[in-house]
Amino acid sequence: MVFVGFGFLMAFLQRYGFSSVGFTFLLAAFALQWSTLVQGFLHSFHGSHIHVGVESMINADFCAGAVLISFGAVLGKTGPAQLLLMALLEVALFGINEFVLLSLLGVKDAGGSMTIHTFGAYFGLVLSRVLYRPQLEKSKHRQGSVYHSDLFAMIGTIFLWIFWPSFNSAPTTLGDGQHRTALNTYYSLTASTLSTFALSALVGKDGRLDMVHIQNAALAGGVVVGTASEMMLTPFGALAAGFLAGTVSTLGYKFFTPVLESKFKVQDTCGVHNLHGMPGVLGALLGVLVTGLATHDAYGDGLQSVFPLIAEGQRSATAQAMYQLFALFVTLTVAAVGGGVGGCLLKLPFLDGPLDSQCYEDRIYWEVPGEHEDEAQGPLREEELDTQA
Amino acid sequence: MVFVGFGFLMAFLQRYGFSSVGFTFLLAAFALQWSTLVQGFLHSFHGSHIHVGVESMINADFCAGAVLISFGAVLGKTGPAQLLLMALLEVALFGINEFVLLSLLGVKDAGGSMTIHTFGAYFGLVLSRVLYRPQLEKSKHRQGSVYHSDLFAMIGTIFLWIFWPSFNSAPTTLGDGQHRTALNTYYSLTASTLSTFALSALVGKDGRLDMVHIQNAALAGGVVVGTASEMMLTPFGALAAGFLAGTVSTLGYKFFTPVLESKFKVQDTCGVHNLHGMPGVLGALLGVLVTGLATHDAYGDGLQSVFPLIAEGQRSATAQAMYQLFALFVTLTVAAVGGGVGGCLLKLPFLDGPLDSQCYEDRIYWEVPGEHEDEAQGPLREEELDTQA
Amino acid sequence: MVFVGFGFLMAFLQRYGFSSVGFTFLLAAFALQWSTLVQGFLHSFHGSHIHVGVESMINADFCAGAVLISFGAVLGKTGPAQLLLMALLEVALFGINEFVLLSLLGVKDAGGSMTIHTFGAYFGLVLSRVLYRPQLEKSKHRQGSVYHSDLFAMIGTIFLWIFWPSFNSAPTTLGDGQHRTALNTYYSLTASTLSTFALSALVGKDGRLDMVHIQNAALAGGVVVGTASEMMLTPFGALAAGFLAGTVSTLGYKFFTPVLESKFKVQDTCGVHNLHGMPGVLGALLGVLVTGLATHDAYGDGLQSVFPLIAEGQRSATAQAMYQLFALFVTLTVAAVGGGVGGCLLKLPFLDGPLDSQCYEDRIYWEVPGEHEDEAQGPLREEELDTQA
Repeated sequence: MVFVGFGFLMAFLQRYGFSSVGFTFLLAAFALQWSTLVQGFLHSFHGSHIHVGVESMINADFCAGAVLISFGAVLGKTGPAQLLLMALLEVALFGINEFVLLSLLGVKDAGGSMTIHTFGAYFGLVLSRVLYRPQLEKSKHRQGSVYHSDLFAMIGTIFLWIFWPSFNSAPTTLGDGQHRTALNTYYSLTASTLSTFALSALVGKDGRLDMVHIQNAALAGGVVVGTASEMMLTPFGALAAGFLAGTVSTLGYKFFTPVLESKFKVQDTCGVHNLHGMPGVLGALLGVLVTGLATHDAYGDGLQSVFPLIAEGQRSATAQAMYQLFALFVTLTVAAVGGGVGGCLLKLPFLDGPLDSQCYEDRIYWEVPGEHEDEAQGPLREEELDTQA
Repeated sequence: MVFVGFGFLMAFLQRYGFSSVGFTFLLAAFALQWSTLVQGFLHSFHGSHIHVGVESMINADFCAGAVLISFGAVLGKTGPAQLLLMALLEVALFGINEFVLLSLLGVKDAGGSMTIHTFGAYFGLVLSRVLYRPQLEKSKHRQGSVYHSDLFAMIGTIFLWIFWPSFNSAPTTLGDGQHRTALNTYYSLTASTLSTFALSALVGKDGRLDMVHIQNAALAGGVVVGTASEMMLTPFGALAAGFLAGTVSTLGYKFFTPVLESKFKVQDTCGVHNLHGMPGVLGALLGVLVTGLATHDAYGDGLQSVFPLIAEGQRSATAQAMYQLFALFVTLTVAAVGGGVGGCLLKLPFLDGPLDSQCYEDRIYWEVPGEHEDEAQGPLREEELDTQA
Repeated sequence: MVFVGFGFLMAFLQRYGFSSVGFTFLLAAFALQWSTLVQGFLHSFHGSHIHVGVESMINADFCAGAVLISFGAVLGKTGPAQLLLMALLEVALFGINEFVLLSLLGVKDAGGSMTIHTFGAYFGLVLSRVLYRPQLEKSKHRQGSVYHSDLFAMIGTIFLWIFWPSFNSAPTTLGDGQHRTALNTYYSLTASTLSTFALSALVGKDGRLDMVHIQNAALAGGVVVGTASEMMLTPFGALAAGFLAGTVSTLGYKFFTPVLESKFKVQDTCGVHNLHGMPGVLGALLGVLVTGLATHDAYGDGLQSVFPLIAEGQRSATAQAMYQLFALFVTLTVAAVGGGVGGCLLKLPFLDGPLDSQCYEDRIYWEVPGEHEDEAQGPLREEELDTQA
């Protein structure tokens, strides 16, 4: 089950080195502890003791996932004190939102299209909006990727891709439901990979592919079936959903991210809106649709485990679908309000955020090797790079 | 079970960056979908429905493995349209060949020495022969590796090494058979690693090791027991097989690959002949030998699961061994004919293969970071590499 | 279960490239084979046959882990022949020490705080002391890390971090005990990660973090609960132990490693004293403490599997704790004597260790790409790095 955490930790092996990997690690460790407490308090608080087990580990992993998604939106523009405060707030809100959705509203969201991806993405985006830096172009020259950093990021992508079926199926009930979840996720991922390649070549200059699209949009297929993968989506449905998600995500990177920054003043470093935001919302809507079509005939005995409230006759399929839709609005509201409040808190001056000209720069937080050498020794350093690295 | 796919996807993290990783990803996603259909049609077509499940995922993974092996032979010399056409053809032939071997001939090939490695390698090699480029030395200066790319490739090697025992044992029956398969694979891998180190130092200049040998030949031990690992190979047999495979593979890289190019006009970019071709054929022959020695005494009740046809008295051990040998010839024939036809198809002009001078070059297919900067800014770029990557 | 070996193999993806990865691979393959024989002879020798199975694979993995820890202490200062001799000796002593501890003394050490970490670290450190090179500063300029190599090492760290709970719980009995082990390890790791970040910033110049601390000390939490994680440590105990281990380990890197070299003449390349030595001893002492507090009430029926000798009334909890303490002294003695003898053997001249000025240099053992090019072509090589790698 620990494999679940895997992908997440690698996911942000993105363009910047020490800070993105290091702070991912810090945030993950902090979020895992804090969310064990928060979720334990909400879910399994029995007579002043919190019961822990494999299930609470998976839940904490999922919560850490949402925090890391939000981190993706503000990557490079926030210091570690700000990030820890963000995680402190977000973990609490994640726990509350998840409790409302799963326990109070009786909504299904196995792979977390809503609770993890939509929540994490819009929390981060609203927070990034509040922290808008009009002078960020001072640091823009450091924002690009280089050849090797793109390959590092691909390692993260491939890990996530491979572990996503296990990830989506981890919290489902054993047996048929779990196999169905894994298969649906797998079909959706293959479809989104193909549509990403096709679209990336179509919109690229001279038909060339863009590595950023491949790294990210190929995973959108996993996000989009987060809610519905447990349900009777059918392989064809999964392929169609994945194809759509890959398309939307790739087009988002190409056309929407620049607009998001220039018009809406949201600076989305990793493009979480394209990978988690839009596919998450799509996934929630897909869940509404598939829920509305649930019948006793299609699920047979499995209905009890997927939709217990329908099986027991407490809700019709349509009513359950309305609850799913309502859950999406709850999630968006909690994420937006939480992100707004969080953004204001993160502006507190003693949290020591980086200056506009210091963004995307490891050296303000890390001892970077080579730093103490004479910078004039250009040729020697090149020689070194070859010999030692 | 998805871990199975793992290794494959990493396997080709070889010398070139974006194209090898990106196209691996593209081919894998395409082959997974297409082979689910092909194999579903051949194996589990029931009344106009295809039954899917964990087993069809493993089968599709194996098929994608064969496609990626062939990709290794033509890496750097083919464009994405050509590769997709190759995958389209190869997946279909893989499915037919596997169906003939496993279902019609009743042959055992758990880890796919024949169906995956021999088939994939010779399909790719014949295809590469048809696509022979006499002017390829125009691109030779881009064919080398650099320090970091070799380390990237080692990540792939270590992953494959670690997952190979699970990979070989994935399709075997649970219990004793699966443990035996994993142990045999593991012993064979350790032996091939040691023999590769020893041979690489022996044939190297001044006793120095060659990273290419370590990256590849160390894995030959996994290939060579693909057929026999499920059988009563004994630890000593596995060690001997692994030692032999590592030796043959290392010597192949050193002495045979240059001859293959100069005399036989086969340009084998990743040396798949050494890692998959020869060890695969050796593995098939080893399977023939071990099958011929199968007795009721040695296997006990396990005979039913390993060799059901012998257990039921329909075939003698010798007859089964002859079938295994015949299966190797079938595989080689299908691979050679398929590769030849595939090569002719890939020469169609509208598929837009790269020019001889553009081989091994990412920039014709990818937006490569740094490309738009002023190339004259040598020192600045070096500074950048240090700051951003 | 093979995943267990995983982390280990990646762990030493440290500062140097080909040699550290390549020799890790060589040593692991050799140690796996040789320890299967040694441990088979000691543990499961039945009528001239050695019984192998999944358990013997896990045991061999653990033994390879200890060898790789020792390798970390002498990394860059020893040739492959020396390393193989070291592994030959260490595997035998590891097997004997483990046999004495687990079978003769009836001591518990699931995750190997004593048998793996303490043994491996002090064996390597004493060996490094004997091989002390006073002129090593001739090679010091090659000992640093560069940006990319630190990122490579972080991949190893994250893998180890994620697999450590599985690793510690692999040899424990299924069910409650295994879940408890995984959870304790997981809490300890999160705590040590947080304390490492905090301490690293506190002791760093201008509050900046040091990547070496993060890479290593974050894992100390896994080492420190190696003995006690199977026991009733409680989540709070695990968090406290992890916090302490992270603190000790970070301070060790900052203050103790330089003293170790200047005063005690121990050159500890990877700082194994900080990651494995001190946390291993702490973990053994923690095991003594928790064992001493074991009661029938706290464990219930689980006592039989964790402490069979206490459950059967053969020993009191205090007596078992004394045995645990005695086992630590046995381990330290065997490691120190073995390391001393090993160091003397490794000084034999025909083993061909590198000269003081050749330490930390790949080129004496490997064909390094780019080596044969004209070194004067500085700008061209840079261009190459960009195009090909």
